[in-house]
Amino acid sequence: MHIKVFKIGGNVVDNPQKLEKFAADFAAVPGAKVLIHGGGAIASQMQKKLGFEPVMIEGRRVTDADTLRIVTMVYAGWCNKSIVALLQKNGCNAIGLSGADAGVIKAVKRPPVRLASTGETVDYGFVGDLKAENIDGGFITGLIETGLTPVFCAITYTADGQLLNTNADTVASGIAVSLSKNHQVHLVYCFEKDGVLADRDDDSSLIRRIDPELFSQLKANGTVADGMLPKLENAFRAISDGVEKVVIKNSRNITNDLGTELVSGK
Amino acid sequence: MHIKVFKIGGNVVDNPQKLEKFAADFAAVPGAKVLIHGGGAIASQMQKKLGFEPVMIEGRRVTDADTLRIVTMVYAGWCNKSIVALLQKNGCNAIGLSGADAGVIKAVKRPPVRLASTGETVDYGFVGDLKAENIDGGFITGLIETGLTPVFCAITYTADGQLLNTNADTVASGIAVSLSKNHQVHLVYCFEKDGVLADRDDDSSLIRRIDPELFSQLKANGTVADGMLPKLENAFRAISDGVEKVVIKNSRNITNDLGTELVSGK
Repeated sequence: MHIKVFKIGGNVVDNPQKLEKFAADFAAVPGAKVLIHGGGAIASQMQKKLGFEPVMIEGRRVTDADTLRIVTMVYAGWCNKSIVALLQKNGCNAIGLSGADAGVIKAVKRPPVRLASTGETVDYGFVGDLKAENIDGGFITGLIETGLTPVFCAITYTADGQLLNTNADTVASGIAVSLSKNHQVHLVYCFEKDGVLADRDDDSSLIRRIDPELFSQLKANGTVADGMLPKLENAFRAISDGVEKVVIKNSRNITNDLGTELVSGK
Repeated sequence: MHIKVFKIGGNVVDNPQKLEKFAADFAAVPGAKVLIHGGGAIASQMQKKLGFEPVMIEGRRVTDADTLRIVTMVYAGWCNKSIVALLQKNGCNAIGLSGADAGVIKAVKRPPVRLASTGETVDYGFVGDLKAENIDGGFITGLIETGLTPVFCAITYTADGQLLNTNADTVASGIAVSLSKNHQVHLVYCFEKDGVLADRDDDSSLIRRIDPELFSQLKANGTVADGMLPKLENAFRAISDGVEKVVIKNSRNITNDLGTELVSGK
């Protein structure tokens, strides 16, 4: 089976107009598909409304017990069910899931880590790390075969019943790699740009196709840097782990081919 | 297939120790089972923390857009996923669902209603009313047949994608009636008393079995009144709609037979 795995982040989930358009477009994508969503900006707003200050270290949220409760409410509750209801409205038979549901994504709690940048040791708290072999790809394809479209929030759990906050990009690549063991999988990361730009201030400078050799050049000459660097490194890792193609594109372009395709050199 | 449909309310969901015990007991119940949970007290706390005052009219929550967001976060997010993770820990392969997921419970938004008590007209807002024929019992039994235990929060939706706050007792009886079309169903309401008491101040006065004739007598002599009256009326309606037996019992007693059985007169 050919399966498309889409990931949308905060810029879509947090914006009702963009989310409405995305839901209509996503519902119209033919064939087997899976959606993974973030929701970080709403979680940060909710933390502040409840009197907590979000703590982010190297782009990842430090998750104490109060934060875990809030991200679970926001991601698994409001964001996930709003997206599912919108997809149902558009004729897409969506089913919303966290990693705990049907035991589909078991994670491990991240031990305290030493940051390469500062040497400081950080305990991220209730944060999950994944291995693709701990994702039940057979359950996900079983749902797809009955006509359903799985919609995942990035909450996972441990075997001893602890919910964990997990990076949504990581959940998306983990699911894509897991499904690629038995299926042909394309992973589509949607974000606020049209793709990888040769000149980040010029939307018309889109690079349409990157293989590992070009990726090395783009790193060396500084075209790919900052936030884009880990995104592409994760994407090429997914490709070397079995995903056929990773596409990075604007969420408004999922029904056309505008975007950057990352492919193996082979 | 014989299916047991359990409903737990706020007194269990809101209390971590009771919920831990309930999850272990529920996981140990053999055979096909479904769980529906409330969470109203947590929702009211969250409303207050966010600066909103809960408005209840005749025991039902008036649900404006802010309240809908909060109950969806609390019921479908925190409560549902906490219960699912606890059940997974206890070896029960639970899957958490709202009515929007897989389109399993379509509801209609309640129109403004005139209260019999005061004659006043009340618009409850984003509140759902159910018909058992709009519940996809086949989907629920399909999950059970694959070894899963469905866990429902009381959030439903309309065909045009509107999430709705729905009474958890009503969702439980709707699911039980829907499943009873093709299966033998027992509906078990768990609450904070051991069952229907002849003397409400004496826990040893438990009435073990009530048929419609006895129910008429208990209404006439005032033994059943206040909050228990609508509960029993709903239960007898479920029985006349096809549920074999309704049991009202303490959540701590689900692994023994202590409780009040409501049965048809036939």
